[in-house]
Amino acid sequence: MSAPDQPVSEPGPDFAADVFERACPSREVVHTVTGRWGALALVALGEGPYRFGALHRRVDGVSERMLAQSLQALERSGFVHREVLVTIPPKVEYSLTPRGEQVAAHLLSLVELIESQMPEILTDQERYDRR
Amino acid sequence: MSAPDQPVSEPGPDFAADVFERACPSREVVHTVTGRWGALALVALGEGPYRFGALHRRVDGVSERMLAQSLQALERSGFVHREVLVTIPPKVEYSLTPRGEQVAAHLLSLVELIESQMPEILTDQERYDRR
Repeated sequence: MSAPDQPVSEPGPDFAADVFERACPSREVVHTVTGRWGALALVALGEGPYRFGALHRRVDGVSERMLAQSLQALERSGFVHREVLVTIPPKVEYSLTPRGEQVAAHLLSLVELIESQMPEILTDQERYDRR
Repeated sequence: MSAPDQPVSEPGPDFAADVFERACPSREVVHTVTGRWGALALVALGEGPYRFGALHRRVDGVSERMLAQSLQALERSGFVHREVLVTIPPKVEYSLTPRGEQVAAHLLSLVELIESQMPEILTDQERYDRR
């Protein structure tokens, strides 16, 4: 863990990632997998491979542009594998890499935790808003 | 799980949260805990209570305004407890609620997973960028 004024720009052999350092590249990677659409895409792909159109329907509400951007960032960091299927017409299929599987499992348990507590969370939100 | 054109706006007794529905309130709550600053604030508070200024230094790079907004959203949904300490001058301390502890533990393991794989992720990113 180095001081905030020593940005980790070129990781050497002693490189230790620290998401609390603003310049550590791990911070952007965490954002890639927890971002609004990246997280949902990963959880959806945890169900199995998807073609782009089907994934776009599954992640209800995302624009094609935002989904494509999220998938590209996930592919770049090795969480998602993009395969062009040699069909007529050609089709593109997305699936999780082993690294993506690990992260998707973490995200799914986080999502399930939130979903299971939504009744209590909504009650807390109402109480907060009435203050 | 209802169809996308049936927004879950007033949860009744049969309410089942589904983050894949665009209108489900769980989606915004997931975003609150995984957002760029909310996630780091939760992981930091997993280390113990923080006063605002110390948390602002710990979450290197966040503005005071964004940190305050994130903490307010986390408090509203019952992840963070905000306490005004009766000192001279008064001080404000933030800590995790039991619900916040659960979520912070999930986020910490996700962050540690990413941090531990950063060397390989950086290699993958370089390979992608050279294509």
